[in-house]
Amino acid sequence: MIHTGFPTHGPTLGDVGEHDVIQAIVNAAPSALNGDDAAVLTPSVPNSRVVAATDMLVAGRHFTETFTTPYAVGQKAVVQNFADIEAMGANPIAALLAISAPPQTPLAVVEDLARGIGDITQHWTSELVGGDVTSGSELVISVTAIGSIGGNLDALRLNRARPGQRVIAHGRIGYSAAGLALLQSGKDIPDEFDVLIQAHQVPQLTPGSGVVARAAGATAMTDNSDGLIKDVSTLARNSGVCIDLTSVALAPDAVLTAAGEYLGVDPWQWVLTGGEDHTLIGTCDGSAPVGFRSIGTVSKGTGVRIDGHEPTYTDGWESF
Amino acid sequence: MIHTGFPTHGPTLGDVGEHDVIQAIVNAAPSALNGDDAAVLTPSVPNSRVVAATDMLVAGRHFTETFTTPYAVGQKAVVQNFADIEAMGANPIAALLAISAPPQTPLAVVEDLARGIGDITQHWTSELVGGDVTSGSELVISVTAIGSIGGNLDALRLNRARPGQRVIAHGRIGYSAAGLALLQSGKDIPDEFDVLIQAHQVPQLTPGSGVVARAAGATAMTDNSDGLIKDVSTLARNSGVCIDLTSVALAPDAVLTAAGEYLGVDPWQWVLTGGEDHTLIGTCDGSAPVGFRSIGTVSKGTGVRIDGHEPTYTDGWESF
Repeated sequence: MIHTGFPTHGPTLGDVGEHDVIQAIVNAAPSALNGDDAAVLTPSVPNSRVVAATDMLVAGRHFTETFTTPYAVGQKAVVQNFADIEAMGANPIAALLAISAPPQTPLAVVEDLARGIGDITQHWTSELVGGDVTSGSELVISVTAIGSIGGNLDALRLNRARPGQRVIAHGRIGYSAAGLALLQSGKDIPDEFDVLIQAHQVPQLTPGSGVVARAAGATAMTDNSDGLIKDVSTLARNSGVCIDLTSVALAPDAVLTAAGEYLGVDPWQWVLTGGEDHTLIGTCDGSAPVGFRSIGTVSKGTGVRIDGHEPTYTDGWESF
Repeated sequence: MIHTGFPTHGPTLGDVGEHDVIQAIVNAAPSALNGDDAAVLTPSVPNSRVVAATDMLVAGRHFTETFTTPYAVGQKAVVQNFADIEAMGANPIAALLAISAPPQTPLAVVEDLARGIGDITQHWTSELVGGDVTSGSELVISVTAIGSIGGNLDALRLNRARPGQRVIAHGRIGYSAAGLALLQSGKDIPDEFDVLIQAHQVPQLTPGSGVVARAAGATAMTDNSDGLIKDVSTLARNSGVCIDLTSVALAPDAVLTAAGEYLGVDPWQWVLTGGEDHTLIGTCDGSAPVGFRSIGTVSKGTGVRIDGHEPTYTDGWESF
């Protein structure tokens, strides 16, 4: 049984005021680089370039308070940003956090969120180095990730997939969408599906997987954020190639299949359109890098196919 | 007469969808670095370190739609972030933008905002290199600024004010608060006060002023964001010094005085507590750097004084 829900009691942001809110965040996610007008980061690799990405999460839109915890939301906000950095083959080194929240929000919500951020950033030996807090009518969390890429290899681009390459993936695809469907169903959730709930609450991204892929010959990469077919289509369109996925490499595993039966849903829908796994998908010459598996091939042409045919499901996340 | 107000007609974000919203932003603020999972920035100075800061603006809280324009809000969001970079003595090189907006928001609002961002970033020869758009119940704009600092001089820190130093300032102080007071009064605003309205809509920060100050011997710096006394108190507290400001150097000028008379307000209140000018305040050894003026002295002790006395007004911005 996975813990869900936001704290509803205790002193609020309005009760304690801006100074104490910031102090709670800094205590939960400490960094010696925080506390000035801006953070100064010293790069540590030769030919170091800066890599930056940002994502915004809105309560009720990107997460549901009863389906998750502030701790998990903080982790998710970091992981989905760090996934964008990893998808360049770069190394996340710092995060910045801007929060807007109603004054009646319990301080415990922000503390728990910052603790999640502080803990997950350490998986990448990175830190929360700065931020901003303000009041607003709904909880909005904006995280910016800063990464570093060194050496002379190119960054992993959306437009670098080439005919003849292998399509590679790291991590489980469809788990996040299955977890969300279970939570939304309102049914009791058997313990065997905990792994799906966890994957929905906090995307499971292995630190360094993008860096490894770049070193091992990957050229194009993105993260599975909006739905597999949609994200792979972005790679194919930007690169001007056709990507043919292999169904046996993507087929729902035992847990996804069981969850599909439990809810009366075709689990292929989660795999092909779910998104939010924030695992890495790319293309490479030669064999798949350590930790990656082959899920298809790149050829001349356009669009995305599965075993040579149109995918059954092609929807994905739309912001509006 | 200054133009104010947000567009209320035309196709909405919900009408055109995510792709077209992003395209409108990219057209209004173009950058070759935008469009991948993350932006890759190549530093161009020796011993280059990365400097990063973020700020969030909420409609109705940080700006009032009838008092400004989306174009000005976009500029303001960039300038207040770039002020944090300049306050380190660093050079802003890029901005990232995350927007949450209701689907019924006219696309023209986002286009105009992005145009403001695109135009103002060019004052620093920088670019909008990435971002995120999502729907939410209110308009929230989060900008992250990335800067670069090179050479062997230290960054300008909050804790580097030292007894014997001169206190220096760049730009007009109190203008933004006076402009806001005029707008809030509901009275007709004579043209002579346009400069105050403009300063409120878009903070007037001279590109490179922080970089110049660092090169010329400044050691501590911040920007005037929350109110002069509050921001100078932050410098004094972090540095463990007393800062004594000189009233003749801060006295309201003819425009502030006239606006004070027009509204029946003591203009010293705007100067000492207004904030949002986002001009630079710091300390330095020797004479004031080019473009800066002396506004006081640093001595042993604690707190902030004016001509040796407690300031008349000490309030400032509080987020909650």
